[in-house]
Parts: sequence; C-alpha cells; structure tokens
Amino acid sequence: MAVYTDFSDEELEHFIQGYNLGAVLSVKGIAEGVENSNYLLVTEAGQFILTLYEKRVKPADLPFFLGLMEHLANAGITCPTPVHNRKGDALGRLAERPTAIVTFLTGMWVKRPRPEHCTAVGAALAELHRAGSDFTLRRINALSVDSWRPLYATCDGRADEVQAGLGHEIETELTFLESHWPDDLPSGVIHADLFPDNVFFLGKTLSGLIDFYFACNDMLAYDLAICLNAWCFEADGALNVTKARALLTGYGSERPLTEAEIAALPILARGAALRFLLTRLHDWLTVPDGALVVPKDPTEYARRLRFHRSAVDARAYGIDL
Amino acid sequence: MAVYTDFSDEELEHFIQGYNLGAVLSVKGIAEGVENSNYLLVTEAGQFILTLYEKRVKPADLPFFLGLMEHLANAGITCPTPVHNRKGDALGRLAERPTAIVTFLTGMWVKRPRPEHCTAVGAALAELHRAGSDFTLRRINALSVDSWRPLYATCDGRADEVQAGLGHEIETELTFLESHWPDDLPSGVIHADLFPDNVFFLGKTLSGLIDFYFACNDMLAYDLAICLNAWCFEADGALNVTKARALLTGYGSERPLTEAEIAALPILARGAALRFLLTRLHDWLTVPDGALVVPKDPTEYARRLRFHRSAVDARAYGIDL
Repeated sequence: MAVYTDFSDEELEHFIQGYNLGAVLSVKGIAEGVENSNYLLVTEAGQFILTLYEKRVKPADLPFFLGLMEHLANAGITCPTPVHNRKGDALGRLAERPTAIVTFLTGMWVKRPRPEHCTAVGAALAELHRAGSDFTLRRINALSVDSWRPLYATCDGRADEVQAGLGHEIETELTFLESHWPDDLPSGVIHADLFPDNVFFLGKTLSGLIDFYFACNDMLAYDLAICLNAWCFEADGALNVTKARALLTGYGSERPLTEAEIAALPILARGAALRFLLTRLHDWLTVPDGALVVPKDPTEYARRLRFHRSAVDARAYGIDL
Repeated sequence: MAVYTDFSDEELEHFIQGYNLGAVLSVKGIAEGVENSNYLLVTEAGQFILTLYEKRVKPADLPFFLGLMEHLANAGITCPTPVHNRKGDALGRLAERPTAIVTFLTGMWVKRPRPEHCTAVGAALAELHRAGSDFTLRRINALSVDSWRPLYATCDGRADEVQAGLGHEIETELTFLESHWPDDLPSGVIHADLFPDNVFFLGKTLSGLIDFYFACNDMLAYDLAICLNAWCFEADGALNVTKARALLTGYGSERPLTEAEIAALPILARGAALRFLLTRLHDWLTVPDGALVVPKDPTEYARRLRFHRSAVDARAYGIDL
C-alpha cells in the first residue's frame, strides 16, 4: 500500500494543463505499489495512471524506464505507455517530484496463479526480451551479484534475529555465488521484478505487464529465474513443478533457451532467491515504527533458496534435458 | 487511507456474476475513506465503486444508507446510486462483509475551499434536506447530544494528555449543551458528515455528494452547523467570515432558515464542534500502535468550539439579523 505524496488542486490543474488531455474529471490515490505514489486519473481523454516518483527511484533512471515502456509498447507489448506533454516530454514535475502520466491497462493481477497463468507469463517474458533487444538505452542491474554483499552488510549481522542460522547461510551462499555466477549467457533488457502483482489478466488471458522500475540490462535467463521464484512456489514453501514446467515451456515457445541457459537455471534461481531474500531482510530490519507499509517475510525466500540449492539440474523444474 | 479487506479472484468473479454488469476489467483499492474498503471497479458496463463495509458500519443501518442514496438520486441529487444485483438487492456479500456497488461520480474534493465552494455546498445541503423530506426510513443520530457524555467516558479522563485543561473544558461544555440543546427545530434527513472530502467539484461546479454513512434524522440546521465547522475555518483556527456568510447564504437560497434556526446557530455549532472533538479525541487516544490510519488532531475542534462559545449570535457568522 502506498500513496505518499499529496498535491494541491492548483498544482494538479497546472500540471495537467501541460498535457493534451482535456480537463481532469477525477483523481484517486491507488493503494497499490510500494515504491511510488500512484493515482487513477480520469480526464476528458480517458483513464490514465499518474505516478509521482518517490525517493527509491533515481531520477537519472527515469529516461530508461519511461523510454523502455514506450519502446516495448511500440513493439506490441501491452504495457503502460507514457503520455507526452505539450513540450514532447514524458517526464514532468508535480509536488516537487518527477511525475509521469501513463496509459491505463485493464486487467487484474492474479493472487493465486494457476499453471495456465505461468505459461502465459513465460511467453510474455520471452516476448518482452525479444522486443527489448533493439532498445538503445542501457541500465546496469544495481541489484545483481556485485551488490549482494554490500546489501547484506546493511543488515549489520542481524539476519539471525529473523531466523537462527540465517546469517551463516547467507554468507556461505554469497561466497558460492560470487565465484560461480555466470557471465556469458545471452543478455538484454530484463524486467527484473515480474511478480504476480505486476502482470494483469482478464480471465486466463494476459492483458498487460506493469512496473518497469527495476528493469535493466542483465542475463535474460536470470529474469526467468526471478519468475520461477515469484510464480511457482506454493504458500507452504514447496515448488509446484507443474507451474515451473508451464513457465519454462511458455518461455521456450517464444524464445528457446540455450543449453547453457538451461544448465545455469539452478544457480540463476539461487541468485534470484538470494536477491529477494536480501532486499526483504533489509526492509524487515529497517522498517520504521508506525510505517504504513508492512514488510514482506524474508524467510519465504530463504526456503526457496534452499530448494534451488538442492536442485541437481533443470530437471528439478520439471523440464526434460 | 483505508482498504482493509482483500478478496480472492474467485470470490470477486462470483460476486460480480450476481450483477448485470458484464465482465470485470479492473479493480483497484482506493486510498480514500477510513471507514470502509473501497475499490474502483471497471466492468464492461462502466466505472463503479465497490464498497466492503467494515466493522464501524452496523449492518442493520445499511438499508437506510443505501435506500437514502437511491432516494436522493431519484430526487435529482448527484450522489452514488446503488446498483441492484440480479435478485434486485442493493446489498450483497463479499469476503464475509456486507458489500455494495454504487455508481462512480466524477469530480475531485477541494483541499482548500474558497467562498464560492462554500456557497455551492450550502445550496447542495439545502437541496439534500428538501429531497430527503419524503424518505420513509428513519435512523436516529447515534452521535447526538445524548451520546456525547458516554463517548467522552471512553476517553477515560485522558483528555489532558492531548491539551492541558481540555478535560475540564469538555465537561463544562457537556453540562451546558445537555441542558440547552434545542429540540424543536425543523428536522429531517441530514448528511451529518459533509466535510470537504465528501463533496466533489469539477472546477467551481459541485458535481456530487458522497459518503452517506453517518446520515440520520436530526435537526436540519445542525447539519449546516457541521458544515460551518468543516468548511469555514482556516488552518490557523480562525473563522473565515466570508466563507461562513457564503455557506449560510447558499443554504438560504434553497431553503430559508427560520428565525429559531438562525438564533440557534451558535449552540448548534458548539454541539457540532464538540461531536467532532470527542470522536477525534477517542480515536487519538485509542489508535493502536502501527495503525495504518493517522488519527486527526482533536485540538482543531477545541479551537472551533471556543470560537462558537464566543459568538453572541449568528452575526458572528457574517449574516445580518
């Protein structure tokens, strides 16, 4: 749940006058997303999402994010498309925040994904990777292997407060991944955060991808490994191998994985699990008293990490070699 | 900021199938309102508000609230109109909560009202009172004079924690109001909570009234006194007499006040200020640690109460006698 920044009527009116969208008919804060302030905006031109970027998003990254959404939309990916203002800019300023208006997507995110949703997500991720291949801006992944040890250091050795032994487990894993992390797999633009709440469906049909604010350049199969973690585990912590197979098969139907990518899946999945374990651990240990956002449980990702460590090869995810 | 209850995809789908609204295209939690869980619902039939009623609303009161909205809408008041399901009911059940779908109103609430907004609100309130005069259901005002002392008792004598001397001031005021509260003024259906966030405008034109979940039967001029408190004071605590005159004149243009009502304005305004002081004080003292809702400052209403106590007659509000 978010909505951090408020603005006056006059500020909004002035801001919208910079666009070719007619008069504002309604603006309501949306209780979704935790990084930015999002509003559903209705104008004479239709429905839009108004986003005020908060401090977790670096202003210097915004041209990459907004440019990517526009590039992908032009390539046929259903994602929010930035609306340009009268000056031609996708980025403006409201209430002293960088601010953008993007198109509204219909659809709902799926709280309990079924295998057919995983198939659709896999295919959409591969299409995104293909569509991003000729995007010219670049952004390094600020949350890849090199950042994990510094990120863990911000937790001040307090991991065992969350679960006994977790600190040692993380340190061992960091050492392993730092010396075994692949660097020669096919790379390109990745979404890097394609969790269920960032994928809209209408019934069983995928109707859009949102929230490109972690997108960056990295190994394509790492993006798939993030989805494996995000979509294919049950509430009890177990992998649902039917969902994993559906995700990987869906992906392969649009972009076949190379042998090297298939072989690297377990380690990529370990890295993805550790990345979310560390950011959740950081948020868990640093959440201020009385915060509006309830931090997510880090131990979910410790359990997933253990599963991936036990995976001998990609057959653990339901695919034949 | 609210949104308390979540529901599964299947629960929502099943619920909406009970209505003649086509398929769901989008549903997003709205960060407005503190009593209920509100969602912006888009279906093939258009935009609606989906409301799940939480514990502060008594289920037995819902037929009054929903029936009133429908009655007022039929009488030409722009307010949310309940949508009936296929069985003909305005009230259903979702996620074990009483739930309704109402029509979506365009417009935004005004964060810094100007006198012309006050004129429009006054006129709309009088129209509401007229339109409500033939509504047949009744609901006593659970937050009128008889309830104030019991409500104060729930604060356990802790008022002075908020402001030194506040407890004595409240007790003196309670004693005065209990023996001087009028009971012979014109009565009918009142909104009872017509604060700026419950009134939508498009530019300077009032486009709708929302949130009828405190509506009840009481003295009409008491509703006006609530608006006087809610719309006509500045951030520094001072009455803006231009706004007060605008509100009262706007009201009088649609329903002239009787001499007795005009004479009673200062005491009604004292009662209204005390009612909001007490509910805010209660919320302030009982807010749980880590609550998602930041309680409103009770002392704002203590300052307003002092102003009304100093008012010799209705001339204090800018009108000629």
